[in-house]
Amino acid sequence: MIFSKRFAVFVLRFLALGASISATTIMITSRETVEVLNIKFEAKYTNTPTFVYFVLMNAIASGYSLILLFFPAKNKFGHFILVLDLIMVLLLDSSISACLAIGQVAKKGNSHAGWLPICGQVHKFCDHAAIAVVAGFVASILYFIIVLYSIHNVMNLFTLKN
Amino acid sequence: MIFSKRFAVFVLRFLALGASISATTIMITSRETVEVLNIKFEAKYTNTPTFVYFVLMNAIASGYSLILLFFPAKNKFGHFILVLDLIMVLLLDSSISACLAIGQVAKKGNSHAGWLPICGQVHKFCDHAAIAVVAGFVASILYFIIVLYSIHNVMNLFTLKN
Repeated sequence: MIFSKRFAVFVLRFLALGASISATTIMITSRETVEVLNIKFEAKYTNTPTFVYFVLMNAIASGYSLILLFFPAKNKFGHFILVLDLIMVLLLDSSISACLAIGQVAKKGNSHAGWLPICGQVHKFCDHAAIAVVAGFVASILYFIIVLYSIHNVMNLFTLKN
Repeated sequence: MIFSKRFAVFVLRFLALGASISATTIMITSRETVEVLNIKFEAKYTNTPTFVYFVLMNAIASGYSLILLFFPAKNKFGHFILVLDLIMVLLLDSSISACLAIGQVAKKGNSHAGWLPICGQVHKFCDHAAIAVVAGFVASILYFIIVLYSIHNVMNLFTLKN
């Protein structure tokens, strides 16, 4: 029973690792060079601080997932690991929301602020970045499930014993 | 002992209610009219979908906090309330991160995308919105503490009984 629970969490962490590595890689490799009015312009993630933040958070999540795959949580660290998992969900959630806010401006623009939409010019870059955000979203959902699973297990044991 | 724990959570929820109501109100009342090249321009939160999202999430958090103040969690709903608290942290975290991403562009602009900074023109509006985001941040920290506190209490009881 305990083994199968550990295995379920292991699989979830493995999938989360895959999703966050994909998110990091896809965002880093998103590049598109376009020529606007004879001026060459290269769209890349380092142009936008929000995308750099996204890459950083997903790289942290990847490293964290990798460490926990090789050093599975012992019971006495369970509490601490749950809090770390929770922080990981928050960091991923934060990076996705920030990217979506910027993506919304990139796609639709903001006429009140005078910000023009740019996805018309660099649609390949925009599509790539969108796929990266989806991968980050999958990673955050997986971490959310890990957190719910841990809370649920503890709560169930708590309820049974009392 | 149980009474003092309930009281601590009550105080945290009351403070979170205050913070999220402040965040909602300050963001809604942020308005500034400026004249640029003889054209009157009004900066308000409804101009930016991200700020509308922020107001909506903080309004939801306010309503949720209010309901839980009057109907304190019974033990059998503890599990469910903890998950709702967790979702509240995620929604607030998401709304703050989205606002910070937009705020960064409003303050610094993004020369690569051709988005000019606008806080120079509407600095009063920017300052107001920044205070709202700080209030939202306080609300999310308070909810994070409530979640940690709930997890900690359950874990402690679990450890003691086993």
